[in-house]
Amino acid sequence: LLTNGRRKVDYVLVFYQRKQISVRGSDRLHRLSAPPHPPHRLSVISNGTGQRSAGDGEVCVDLAVEVELEADPAEGEMVLIREEFEARLLEAGLEMERDTEVRDQPFCVFTRLHVPWQVLSREAEFLKIKIPTKKVRPPPLYSRVCVCNPMDGSSPNTNRGLISVLPYLFFVLYRFNITSKDTFFDNATRSRILLHDEWARYGAFYKYQPVDLIRKYFGEKIGLYFAWLGVYTQLLIPASMVGIIVFCYGCYTVDMDVPSLEMCDKQQNFTMCPLCDGVCDYWHLSTACGTARASHLFDNPATVFFAIFMSLWVATFLEHWKRRQISLNHSWDLTGLEEEETGVEKLTWRDRLPGYLINISSILFMFGLTFSAVFGVIVYRIVVSALMAMSPDPETKSNVRVTVTATAVIINLVVILILDEIYGAVAVWLTELEIPRTESNFEQHLILKAFLLKFMNAYAPIFYVAFFKGRFAGRPGDYVYVFNDYRMEECAPGGCLIELCIQLSIIMVGKQLIQNNVFEIGIPKLKKLIRAWKGKGISLEEREEQRARPPQQWNLDYTLVPFEGLTPEYMEMIIQFGFVSLFVASFPLAPLFALLNNVIEIRLDAKKFVTELRRPDAVQAKDIGIWYNILSGMGKFSVIINAFVISFTSDFIPRLVYQYMYSQTGTMHGFIDHTLSHFNVSNFRPGNAPTSSYLPETTVCRYKDYREPPWSAEAYQFSKTYWAVLAARLAFVILFQNLVMFLSLLVAWVIPDVPKNISEQLKREKTLLVDVFLREEKEKFHLLQSLFSSKDQPSQGHPDTAHFRTLPLGLSQGLGQPPGGEGGESRVRCRAASFSQFTRQMSMSPSNDAARHTAV
Amino acid sequence: LLTNGRRKVDYVLVFYQRKQISVRGSDRLHRLSAPPHPPHRLSVISNGTGQRSAGDGEVCVDLAVEVELEADPAEGEMVLIREEFEARLLEAGLEMERDTEVRDQPFCVFTRLHVPWQVLSREAEFLKIKIPTKKVRPPPLYSRVCVCNPMDGSSPNTNRGLISVLPYLFFVLYRFNITSKDTFFDNATRSRILLHDEWARYGAFYKYQPVDLIRKYFGEKIGLYFAWLGVYTQLLIPASMVGIIVFCYGCYTVDMDVPSLEMCDKQQNFTMCPLCDGVCDYWHLSTACGTARASHLFDNPATVFFAIFMSLWVATFLEHWKRRQISLNHSWDLTGLEEEETGVEKLTWRDRLPGYLINISSILFMFGLTFSAVFGVIVYRIVVSALMAMSPDPETKSNVRVTVTATAVIINLVVILILDEIYGAVAVWLTELEIPRTESNFEQHLILKAFLLKFMNAYAPIFYVAFFKGRFAGRPGDYVYVFNDYRMEECAPGGCLIELCIQLSIIMVGKQLIQNNVFEIGIPKLKKLIRAWKGKGISLEEREEQRARPPQQWNLDYTLVPFEGLTPEYMEMIIQFGFVSLFVASFPLAPLFALLNNVIEIRLDAKKFVTELRRPDAVQAKDIGIWYNILSGMGKFSVIINAFVISFTSDFIPRLVYQYMYSQTGTMHGFIDHTLSHFNVSNFRPGNAPTSSYLPETTVCRYKDYREPPWSAEAYQFSKTYWAVLAARLAFVILFQNLVMFLSLLVAWVIPDVPKNISEQLKREKTLLVDVFLREEKEKFHLLQSLFSSKDQPSQGHPDTAHFRTLPLGLSQGLGQPPGGEGGESRVRCRAASFSQFTRQMSMSPSNDAARHTAV
Repeated sequence: LLTNGRRKVDYVLVFYQRKQISVRGSDRLHRLSAPPHPPHRLSVISNGTGQRSAGDGEVCVDLAVEVELEADPAEGEMVLIREEFEARLLEAGLEMERDTEVRDQPFCVFTRLHVPWQVLSREAEFLKIKIPTKKVRPPPLYSRVCVCNPMDGSSPNTNRGLISVLPYLFFVLYRFNITSKDTFFDNATRSRILLHDEWARYGAFYKYQPVDLIRKYFGEKIGLYFAWLGVYTQLLIPASMVGIIVFCYGCYTVDMDVPSLEMCDKQQNFTMCPLCDGVCDYWHLSTACGTARASHLFDNPATVFFAIFMSLWVATFLEHWKRRQISLNHSWDLTGLEEEETGVEKLTWRDRLPGYLINISSILFMFGLTFSAVFGVIVYRIVVSALMAMSPDPETKSNVRVTVTATAVIINLVVILILDEIYGAVAVWLTELEIPRTESNFEQHLILKAFLLKFMNAYAPIFYVAFFKGRFAGRPGDYVYVFNDYRMEECAPGGCLIELCIQLSIIMVGKQLIQNNVFEIGIPKLKKLIRAWKGKGISLEEREEQRARPPQQWNLDYTLVPFEGLTPEYMEMIIQFGFVSLFVASFPLAPLFALLNNVIEIRLDAKKFVTELRRPDAVQAKDIGIWYNILSGMGKFSVIINAFVISFTSDFIPRLVYQYMYSQTGTMHGFIDHTLSHFNVSNFRPGNAPTSSYLPETTVCRYKDYREPPWSAEAYQFSKTYWAVLAARLAFVILFQNLVMFLSLLVAWVIPDVPKNISEQLKREKTLLVDVFLREEKEKFHLLQSLFSSKDQPSQGHPDTAHFRTLPLGLSQGLGQPPGGEGGESRVRCRAASFSQFTRQMSMSPSNDAARHTAV
Repeated sequence: LLTNGRRKVDYVLVFYQRKQISVRGSDRLHRLSAPPHPPHRLSVISNGTGQRSAGDGEVCVDLAVEVELEADPAEGEMVLIREEFEARLLEAGLEMERDTEVRDQPFCVFTRLHVPWQVLSREAEFLKIKIPTKKVRPPPLYSRVCVCNPMDGSSPNTNRGLISVLPYLFFVLYRFNITSKDTFFDNATRSRILLHDEWARYGAFYKYQPVDLIRKYFGEKIGLYFAWLGVYTQLLIPASMVGIIVFCYGCYTVDMDVPSLEMCDKQQNFTMCPLCDGVCDYWHLSTACGTARASHLFDNPATVFFAIFMSLWVATFLEHWKRRQISLNHSWDLTGLEEEETGVEKLTWRDRLPGYLINISSILFMFGLTFSAVFGVIVYRIVVSALMAMSPDPETKSNVRVTVTATAVIINLVVILILDEIYGAVAVWLTELEIPRTESNFEQHLILKAFLLKFMNAYAPIFYVAFFKGRFAGRPGDYVYVFNDYRMEECAPGGCLIELCIQLSIIMVGKQLIQNNVFEIGIPKLKKLIRAWKGKGISLEEREEQRARPPQQWNLDYTLVPFEGLTPEYMEMIIQFGFVSLFVASFPLAPLFALLNNVIEIRLDAKKFVTELRRPDAVQAKDIGIWYNILSGMGKFSVIINAFVISFTSDFIPRLVYQYMYSQTGTMHGFIDHTLSHFNVSNFRPGNAPTSSYLPETTVCRYKDYREPPWSAEAYQFSKTYWAVLAARLAFVILFQNLVMFLSLLVAWVIPDVPKNISEQLKREKTLLVDVFLREEKEKFHLLQSLFSSKDQPSQGHPDTAHFRTLPLGLSQGLGQPPGGEGGESRVRCRAASFSQFTRQMSMSPSNDAARHTAV
């Protein structure tokens, strides 16, 4: 494919003549370091050499250094810089190749780089030394020691002979056996085609993902993301099933539910106090029958069970993922991979303070923005309801609630989507202000900030409905007003839970649909279109010239969208995980919707990665990093949130209290009457009573609260029942939280972190390894002895051999054989064997004379 | 000391002629495996060889196989077995030496074993192979790879040149450089003398412990225990200081505390309902002035602060210990130590079920026993108070509360101490029933069980006082009775917190004093005395013969108490940690008492380890194991317990509620009146009213509860205030728990696990290591090349050298140099260097010709 004649194209540099200079490299580094600083550039290239392992040579990535702002005067300087840069590349031994025709029009020029074998070797050698000493961004350390079983030496499957042990002393650049093959591209292409068939088809939704293939083509980091997504989606299946059962239980018992039957009973003619001042009339509770029945679907005892179930599900999911991660680490040979030591790179508190202050203040400002948006929607709702209630048109009046709720939720959704994009950009900007030292540091800070902002953004309206709506509305005769005129809103007669449920389902489903369709499919398509359209800004003759010449792969790839990291993908899923875990007590169908979304999401992401994006750098990673902490934190948070939703938002506790403390019969009969307080209409403030009423004979209206009746000495104060119910609610929170925390600990303790087959396999590998090693050691010892005996002190003057002579033989033999002594040679032989096997297998050119000079 | 002529005594076997056979070895294994099974015995010896590293040759341990039950017939068999066993020892190359005179009397015969160097070497070699393959009880794997800096090769301090890296491939028996030295004992003795001076003196209480010396002499496990004890004691200093400040705050504010002033105010003459039926009279609240003032010392707002402080202290302590552990791991070179894989050794659930069932039922039975004991003491208290109240003697009557409380607490303490010993034995018995596969497994199970039992035992009476006492007493006119006659006990008028405080302080201080003095000093002394007295059962002439011959070290050591593991030491501290963390809200002086105890405890333990106990096996350990989990679990548990103590046992919440909800003036004036309910004495059941009273005009008496007054419609029902206070209490629990959990997480997050200097040092070591390794690699490559070039294909037929020829040179050179290839030789040289340096330094005989035959 991308082979350029006979050489492999390792990198393609792109620069815009007159407009932009683009260079291939890790784009974050460029953004951080001073743009055109040649020694840095060179280190980029050597980094690239280390990382290009998975053969990502056909990728062409924009440089983030935009120099468009600097107009013509800078142009000359840029050319100089570029020339110096290219000279340094050549000096460093890279081979360069460029399309000769340089046009006057602004057009991107592709410079193709080939890194010859000797440069690779030298860079590899340098890397080995530099890894631990390099202070800024040490490239990941890939190493592997091979010990091949001499019994199995002729086996064609070299991988089985390789047993990965902890590296450290013996660096072999990981995967050199892949990149050193010029013919590797066929392999990658095959992967790509396979991937497209096996993975990126919607038809394959019921199949497991080819995670190993994904890892091979895209690297471990992306492989882990898809593996994680797979585990999450897989575990959503039981959760959705239980959710459906809970929902069905609600549907099934709705006709047996005494409170909703009582609410719908027109015999029990509760006259309710008006919902707004003046224009609203008294109304009968039975008219709210519908919402009462709908409430029962989500607000029934099964929901409590479901909330406990889902908390344990979260614990199970986290444990299951740990196991899967360890399995993958094992099968992908990542066990020895050392994490970058972020601890060392931390700045002191004093250095961080200014950055932190800016960050905290900005984040607080964003929080304020989110809250303002939520409050704005509340005001919208209050004002529009009031206006519509005042409208003379009866049609308008009857639809107040539906219209207002629907439009408000849609406004909420739109605000969330817009702020989501803004916050993403703000988080990047803020993180850049901090100047974090490393890529992973940058990523962590970015993720934390983006998560905080997006989490608040997505959940603020839901938190409002769950815990605040209707709680500050006051009571008849003493309502709370905003802007002096508008009464605070109350929950629907069916309770706040049904509103929470509506809010949650619309935001969750709407967000997913729109983000999937618009942001993940629409916008990349649009960008591609714009990119293609920009390319058409050339003159007609050139276009014809182009048509005559078939476009090169790099031209085609250049039109693809650059990969911008996994953060948005993870973020989307984590926010969804919040819907599934945080408020699941109010919406048991959330896991189902999440499942449906994810089945599509996986294939959508797959398609995007395979066809829409430039191939990303293959980055090694051992785990999903900070996302695990966020997931685990969310799991902990969800326990307390669900406890509060069940005890404060749902009617579960008031019902229990009624049944066991107040009911005469021990049944729920009379519950509705019990929850409604009395209000003497003569206590209305002037102008608050209905101006005209169909029920003029009303003297007492009812409202939902636990307050003393008008005839009590403490009229309209909270009643004893109020405090008893409050105590019961709080007691439930304590009970629920501690029970679930304990059960989660138990789940985490019962599920072992390391799967049994892995731990057994590790043990077997250990045995085999020691066995092989000792046997080889013995052979090598014989060999060395024969060498020394046949050649009588061949290099007496040499310090090393002299040492061999002075070695107290008895001692070293007493120890078995000197353990390190012969192992080295055996490893040479063994490595030689495995490499030569590999060479034979892959029909690779065995040696390169030029390399000899650089190595010695 | 223990050098036997010129040979070192590695082990001393002891057997009782005619009575017992004793053998040196790991005594748990003997207990588990069939007693006299020679091949097993041999494996014990080789285990011993591996573990004797720290030169524990003078220890003489009883064999757990008691054959006393089998009388004479078995005697002959035992002799045969012993003879076969000894023959096998000789066959295995061990050298044996025994006192010639064999008496007819039952007397222990000491057989001294010397393990010659070649046997050590051979066993070391075997161990290397066996370690991973051995299925049952793999001996700990001690290994170390040395890489010495060639620049630093002549440095006399070999340890600085050794850089510990992960072992695995290259096993060198850990500490061979110590045990291989025949003169090592002088070293150990010196340690011991130093230890005694530096550590085991009470006068050194203000100094840091010589942890490195302790580790050198006793091994890592015991070293870690003392290091942990040191960190714990050190951190107790700030905790005690804050505790003293809180207590002083209480003392200082006691005269300003409105509630206790009101209680002592004789003007506010509250007539209280009688404390028992019939014989007790009404009484004035002002007579309880003393307890009210005492209560304030412990029950004031500062206590809430202290509870939060102590929860964070626990988090800090755990984090601090983690850091210390990592530091110690680093300075003791334990970073590479592999944990035993307990995961693999786990049985399936089905295998475990019967053992678990027995265990669970036994533990439940023990719990029942504990609860019965607590209940027994309660009954004692109730009955004795009732009887004393009925006594005609006014002196007796006035002292009821003091007498009963004091005697009851002492009974509690005695019961706790007795059950503690019983439970220790029961836990061992239960764990043996389970037949755990490994020593560490056994230890874990034992610790868990013993902890559960001892924890319940120590805390059950405290839990009762904190959360149950006085809560089921009923109210005047409707008291709760046990055994039909006795009223349930109530708390003292000052509140339950002062009783909790008394209970806690007496049990804590009493337990520590008695356990320290009786169990840790008295009983070992007694045992030693008994042992010495038993030895006197020989005839007079022999005793004189003995006197003529100075007793050997093994005779002296034999009279010492065998070491029985660290479990009791840890357990004592963990139970104390519970006193410091769990109920600290009620007793701010607990940390101070713990500190005072520990300062003595450290020196006491030190003395015990240095002078009273036989020298324990040196066992390697990386951490304190399951104790950390127990500590961390206790820390979590303490949060909720303290929340409940503050909100339910103390008067903190009722005061707050009064001040902000009910007080007219916003001050605490009137609080006492508010907390006392009214009772109409005409509502007493027949016989419950005082038979004769000094206050005959009383119509209404007061009692401490929130209930409706007699003139209310719902007389004696819980009042609205009750529910409001209850809700406030519960809300406080939720707030406190979540706040403290959050803050603890924050503390854990802020304190990095790895200390900065360690992480920097690790980085430096890494750099150095790679540097050295690469330089040496290059040199070796040159050497190998010169070898092959000067000697033209010296062993063409040999497969290994043939491989060298077919090695694709370009490839291997391209990779820098084949990493493993030359490293081996360099390591030989390096090891040779370090060993020869060591030899020179320690004046050791360099070689042993016999070893050559065993090794090759």
